[in-house]
Amino acid sequence: MSQKWTYSFGGGAAEGRSTMRNLLGGKGANLHEMSAIGLSVPPGFTLTTEVCTHFVASKGDYPDGLNDQVNAAIAKLETIMGAPFGGGADEGKVLLLSVRSGARASMPGMMDTVLNLGLNDEAVEILAAETGDGRFAYDSYRRFVQMFGDVVLGVDHYHFEDLLEDYKLDHALTLDTDLTVDDWKALLPKYIGAIEKQTGNPFPQDPRQQLWAAIGAVFHSWTNKRAQTYRMLHDISDEWGTAVNVQAMVFGNMGDDSATGVCFTRNPSTGENMFYGEYLVNAQGEDVVAGIRTPQPLSNSEKERSSLHLPSLEELMPKLYAELDDVRHALERHYSDMQDMEFTIQKGKLWILQTRGGKRTTKAALKIAVDMVSEGLIDSNEAIRRIEPSHLDQLLHPTLDPKAPRDILGQGLPASPGAAFGKLVFTAKAAEEWAERGEAVILARVETSPEDISGMHVSKGIITTRGGMTSHAAVVARGMGKPCISGMGDITVNVKDKTLTAMGVVLKEGDLVTVDGSAGQLMRGTVPTVEPEFSGDFGTLMGWADQVRRLGVRANAETPTDAKVARGFGAQGIGLARTEHMFFDPERIIHMREMILASDEQARRVALDKLLPYQRQDFSQLLSIMEGLPVTIRLLDPPLHEFLPDQPADIENVAKALGVSAEDIIRRSKDLHEFNPMLGHRGCRLAITYPEIYEMQTRAIFEAAADLVKSGHTIYPEVMIPLVADREELTRLKALVVKTADAVLAEQGVELSYHVGTMIELPRAALQAGEIAKDAEFFSFGTNDLTQTTYGLSRDDAGRFLQIYREKGVMQFDPFVTIDQAGVGELVKIGTERGRAERPGLKVGICGEHGGDPASIHFCHDTGLDYVSCSPYRVPIARLAAAQAALGGDVKTNA
Amino acid sequence: MSQKWTYSFGGGAAEGRSTMRNLLGGKGANLHEMSAIGLSVPPGFTLTTEVCTHFVASKGDYPDGLNDQVNAAIAKLETIMGAPFGGGADEGKVLLLSVRSGARASMPGMMDTVLNLGLNDEAVEILAAETGDGRFAYDSYRRFVQMFGDVVLGVDHYHFEDLLEDYKLDHALTLDTDLTVDDWKALLPKYIGAIEKQTGNPFPQDPRQQLWAAIGAVFHSWTNKRAQTYRMLHDISDEWGTAVNVQAMVFGNMGDDSATGVCFTRNPSTGENMFYGEYLVNAQGEDVVAGIRTPQPLSNSEKERSSLHLPSLEELMPKLYAELDDVRHALERHYSDMQDMEFTIQKGKLWILQTRGGKRTTKAALKIAVDMVSEGLIDSNEAIRRIEPSHLDQLLHPTLDPKAPRDILGQGLPASPGAAFGKLVFTAKAAEEWAERGEAVILARVETSPEDISGMHVSKGIITTRGGMTSHAAVVARGMGKPCISGMGDITVNVKDKTLTAMGVVLKEGDLVTVDGSAGQLMRGTVPTVEPEFSGDFGTLMGWADQVRRLGVRANAETPTDAKVARGFGAQGIGLARTEHMFFDPERIIHMREMILASDEQARRVALDKLLPYQRQDFSQLLSIMEGLPVTIRLLDPPLHEFLPDQPADIENVAKALGVSAEDIIRRSKDLHEFNPMLGHRGCRLAITYPEIYEMQTRAIFEAAADLVKSGHTIYPEVMIPLVADREELTRLKALVVKTADAVLAEQGVELSYHVGTMIELPRAALQAGEIAKDAEFFSFGTNDLTQTTYGLSRDDAGRFLQIYREKGVMQFDPFVTIDQAGVGELVKIGTERGRAERPGLKVGICGEHGGDPASIHFCHDTGLDYVSCSPYRVPIARLAAAQAALGGDVKTNA
Repeated sequence: MSQKWTYSFGGGAAEGRSTMRNLLGGKGANLHEMSAIGLSVPPGFTLTTEVCTHFVASKGDYPDGLNDQVNAAIAKLETIMGAPFGGGADEGKVLLLSVRSGARASMPGMMDTVLNLGLNDEAVEILAAETGDGRFAYDSYRRFVQMFGDVVLGVDHYHFEDLLEDYKLDHALTLDTDLTVDDWKALLPKYIGAIEKQTGNPFPQDPRQQLWAAIGAVFHSWTNKRAQTYRMLHDISDEWGTAVNVQAMVFGNMGDDSATGVCFTRNPSTGENMFYGEYLVNAQGEDVVAGIRTPQPLSNSEKERSSLHLPSLEELMPKLYAELDDVRHALERHYSDMQDMEFTIQKGKLWILQTRGGKRTTKAALKIAVDMVSEGLIDSNEAIRRIEPSHLDQLLHPTLDPKAPRDILGQGLPASPGAAFGKLVFTAKAAEEWAERGEAVILARVETSPEDISGMHVSKGIITTRGGMTSHAAVVARGMGKPCISGMGDITVNVKDKTLTAMGVVLKEGDLVTVDGSAGQLMRGTVPTVEPEFSGDFGTLMGWADQVRRLGVRANAETPTDAKVARGFGAQGIGLARTEHMFFDPERIIHMREMILASDEQARRVALDKLLPYQRQDFSQLLSIMEGLPVTIRLLDPPLHEFLPDQPADIENVAKALGVSAEDIIRRSKDLHEFNPMLGHRGCRLAITYPEIYEMQTRAIFEAAADLVKSGHTIYPEVMIPLVADREELTRLKALVVKTADAVLAEQGVELSYHVGTMIELPRAALQAGEIAKDAEFFSFGTNDLTQTTYGLSRDDAGRFLQIYREKGVMQFDPFVTIDQAGVGELVKIGTERGRAERPGLKVGICGEHGGDPASIHFCHDTGLDYVSCSPYRVPIARLAAAQAALGGDVKTNA
Repeated sequence: MSQKWTYSFGGGAAEGRSTMRNLLGGKGANLHEMSAIGLSVPPGFTLTTEVCTHFVASKGDYPDGLNDQVNAAIAKLETIMGAPFGGGADEGKVLLLSVRSGARASMPGMMDTVLNLGLNDEAVEILAAETGDGRFAYDSYRRFVQMFGDVVLGVDHYHFEDLLEDYKLDHALTLDTDLTVDDWKALLPKYIGAIEKQTGNPFPQDPRQQLWAAIGAVFHSWTNKRAQTYRMLHDISDEWGTAVNVQAMVFGNMGDDSATGVCFTRNPSTGENMFYGEYLVNAQGEDVVAGIRTPQPLSNSEKERSSLHLPSLEELMPKLYAELDDVRHALERHYSDMQDMEFTIQKGKLWILQTRGGKRTTKAALKIAVDMVSEGLIDSNEAIRRIEPSHLDQLLHPTLDPKAPRDILGQGLPASPGAAFGKLVFTAKAAEEWAERGEAVILARVETSPEDISGMHVSKGIITTRGGMTSHAAVVARGMGKPCISGMGDITVNVKDKTLTAMGVVLKEGDLVTVDGSAGQLMRGTVPTVEPEFSGDFGTLMGWADQVRRLGVRANAETPTDAKVARGFGAQGIGLARTEHMFFDPERIIHMREMILASDEQARRVALDKLLPYQRQDFSQLLSIMEGLPVTIRLLDPPLHEFLPDQPADIENVAKALGVSAEDIIRRSKDLHEFNPMLGHRGCRLAITYPEIYEMQTRAIFEAAADLVKSGHTIYPEVMIPLVADREELTRLKALVVKTADAVLAEQGVELSYHVGTMIELPRAALQAGEIAKDAEFFSFGTNDLTQTTYGLSRDDAGRFLQIYREKGVMQFDPFVTIDQAGVGELVKIGTERGRAERPGLKVGICGEHGGDPASIHFCHDTGLDYVSCSPYRVPIARLAAAQAALGGDVKTNA
């Protein structure tokens, strides 16, 4: 027996169910389901996705047995509907069909729908006779010809529109509704003529020929360029294929007892539990979305809110409205989710054409999930699964008023979400000066460096013409919760002239611009923003998430502001406090530079002694804000040349301030110059050569800690050594830290337990994790650097060609955003296993950018890590993603 | 029963053997061995290395039972020698002892020897009476006091020398031999007084106290700074400890029937099988090396060669000479190796004091090994084991005449061996100009870049002030077989002024200098060089090595010269032909630059078409030189910015030549600028973005190949794709290569089998090797880049701090020289295993610098690689190391 290629539904039964999504596609599976539970669905059948796979593989052939199965399915349809496909003059009845694509996941870019299929020069007369409405029949026929010509035969719709416009002009007609049956009759040969001229073939009159052409067009569209691109961008496999749904036509345009509409079982913007939708009397579905006629509200309550005073369906057809409302409740109960439905009323009979999970705003998603738990429709675990963690981002930042007009200047990467407006400045220094005068500023740079930190701190938003989603600007901005657009390749920033050129417009310092970091858009002038609001639903859901998750969630934070934000968002400690940002403050950097320019250890110690009080204060603040929670402090990491000035004027100033010559500074900068600073003299390598730096930092940490302990605080400092490649590095530096810490605690007469651990951020460290764990009391995977070294890929440089990799489909994801499980992930696993084999129960976390990425968080959970650490604004996202990971499996969607 | 801490030998028996080196030390084990086989060795006993370990661990304590065992051993000695230790007035005899250190491996920096121990104010009189030679007795006593004071008690020897000088002045004496017994008697209290003044303690008169002080001094010296440093530099474990040998004194200074000497069983410079050594009549061992008296030749044949006409031992004491010659043959037969011996003749009796494997030149080592095989002393495998592969380097390059004086200007790293002199130039361009005029030039740079290649090619030697053993200059120079000194931090090169400043001397362009790349020394003026000679022994040994080894040896070569050298040295193909060096030729680089500056693919193709004929010619030459052998051609690897000019004048010239503006070039350079070019847009990433580059290169390879095949050549081209991180990259580029290659072969009507493979040079590629092997037909581990990425360490930048790592002992080896087995090596293993699991029999090689390093070659053998590829001048080294690896175990030495 041949394989089963078609599945029928209708007449209160179905061969498929909603669980057969992979075989029947999303739309098809739901049609079967609705039919199976007894809803009034126009009968039909589904050609499975396996037919598509066969069609694509064989370059256009159908599998054996399909033709017979389709004929049988049509025969079944004809029986249910009591009408022959393409019409029988004898019966005086005609069965028309719709043909729709329906892939596993919703997928724009493919052929969508052909309606009224089966009409031809004979059938249209039968339909006219059957319905007693010649105009309806010929309007249906011309709609079919136009739609079939356009989507199946590829004849551009403007051909038909031109013909219609000409006809209207010639006959002094304005609206489509002005055309009579004779007008449509006259137009039809012109339409068909246009098609035959364009295609060189006669328009198919045979209904089965029409059907197979439509089916073939759907399968063909699976491989078209737009669909391929969409699949690449959305990680949809080419192998999945699409199903085709063939269904009996029902008509909402058979008079005033007919109607058609779309509706949501709850409000998709707010999540309120009210029936929400719109409809049109005497219309086909396309009319509702076409916008020519104004759709009417579904319910009375909606009508009250609207200012249009159009009659609601509840008023106009109360019985049918009640029936539809029953369906609404039935579907919600059945699917346990908010549904997006389409319905048609044909001569007083309600038909449900489609249902699917309704798209909704994040705010609505939260409310619906929480409400459904209290309504008993779902449990709290299911509510957790319902929210896409990354969507929470929308809620946590100011956003642009969606209603406000936007004068868009350019598009870049949405590097850090949120929105802000302010006056353009081009240097960090200018940012500080303008900000001191109370101005809101947007900092525009080619790229940012650690020297720009203080300028970034006072800016409302940041844009860079270079760099990717994980460039310095992007990472720092996300950490600060400021909107940022990076990689705006189409705009030019000229720091010397203080101009920004975009789309031919030249903006000067002080000109107003608006940054939408969520969309990656730069706008001219001011676009009003909306502040975030946290509903009770947010707190409720987060509470559930916290109960479920196993992974801890910490924050990467080093300023008191960031630490407070992080704690407010529920961070369970700091997983990464970078100590170097603390040195860029103007009154500190001078001592840092003095240290770097020092000729010997003694001179370095003099400079370090001046930095000590500042660092002590930094650590005191961080530790007290995070009271009761662990704070992981990473000792100095970046290469020293990052701290030296590079502009002649700055060099002159620094030279004057330090009493050295400009040449000294230039020479030292040259000495420190590196070809590949990422792989250079940084991290623990600095401390192997200049141990006194880490000694000072350790002293600062434990002096701060001792003071806090004496005043009754409970603190958990963790000292982290970066860039360890070999155990020996850690052995020596741990000994230095322990010796210094214990000396300080003894001096202060304080007892305090603390831990010394390391970043695992080099492939060698992951491989040598067993050895390293002999000294390390915790591991934190620095997956940013680990990704750079594992791939041999500089994130500062990769922006341009990674883009091409993505476009060409060579790379399916950005490894700096989502952890590369096959390579970097294996090293994380190896490192964790070997570390724990040596030191059972070793605490292992991750503090790269991946710590805030839901897919990466799933990986961290599966790998058995103890915590993730991410930027403060991603803490709620991480809490939710960690909960979903704990619940296991893929996140459920039926959209 | 207590552990055995002492082992006795002498009187034709011994408790130890030469195999007990770890317990008895090298010297001790050989003393036991000689005693056991019946040679005349002064009896004695050895305190084991375990005593030392106990002593160090307990900070100066001796193990229980040691004292009794020492006493028993001394008693045994007294019995054999028939004299009591420290003398007995009754017997009228005295036993004196020597105390010597003896670690497992020969180790300078430790306390060496105390002689005549046991003498005191009484014993000296007994000795005088016993020998009837008061002067001898008191001379022996003062030697003992001085030596004991110096090496055991730490009283600087100048104290004694001053006293002696004063005494001679006061008494108008010139030579030591002028002093009488009374003079020595008068001096002795002064010596002892000096010691007591310096130490604050009386000089020990008790012989056992003397003995324990000397033993303690040896053990103490194990932990002194010099010994520690030596161990660190020579990979000797602190745990090994040293043994102490206590032995009965014999005297070569008891009159004209006494003598002492050192000898080698064969000539250590040439390897000739002749007895080689020198001796002095009536002298102690120290006199032979002190250089005050001129030592005399041992044999008549040596005497004939010498111009000194001093009587030989063979003449003077023919019977004893014959006895010594017997010992010589016995020891060579016994140890199967050339020996370095010390002997003493006391009143007509021959005593052998020491034997050990003799140090020899590489030339001698080769001759001795090959000769011993024909003499039946060893087999050819043992001969292979006897040569340290890295020492072959000496034979392969010109060297400085060792007799010529050197006016040394500075010291750097011995980056590439060999020697050369020439006129100083400071730019590659100047090198080419001077060379065209027929001048020999030495190129001095701060550091070199690929732009300097052609200038390096015409230079006789290269020096750089920056960079390490694996800097660009070092790697390229080794590949070219040219001497190079890198990292000459103490000299300053000023390119603008065309000066080099070293030790206050300023040299100008055109000044003569000499480079010794083997020693890392730069000399002023001309030092004559000696050309290498290859003896038949070299060829014989290499032939044996080739029969034994399993690993193939290829060369990294891209010029015809290099390829010819490599083939001459026995390379079995090319493992890495870098195609980019070919683009730096002046008439080519202009097209390369045109390609880089091109605005679209069409314009790039126009420029690439101009490069095609050059590349075709390159490949044609390489493939025909390597006829019958595989040639692995790596497609373009470096980032494009390396090809653009950076000097204003060059930019102007290039702009003119290409008909673009200088600004265009500067802008493009800026566009291409990368923060971490090592991790940037290079390797296969270039070809994913610009496939036409690899397409042209593939076409050039296969057009050249087709021509060769047509003219009857047998060639094996292998196309290698660099920097693959993910299979998809290789899949696409292999498809491009295969499509292009097959098209060319079809055009030309030629059949040719070829392979497409990849470098494994990123950690991710090693981890993903299973996937990658689905496409790759061979792997070549690029361990240079793999080391950089695994360690996160840029070899261009690491020079300075790696030096500090080495000095502080944080790193025991340079991972760019010897493969890091724990990290990089694990990735090589993983990559090999996973690759072969997917594609059984996958050919796997290594083409990093490690391919020429013996320790790394052992690793490659053990890991099951198919071949190593190294620079042409290291091919013989690799062949030998591969043979040693195949023979297994550590290389045997008894030195």
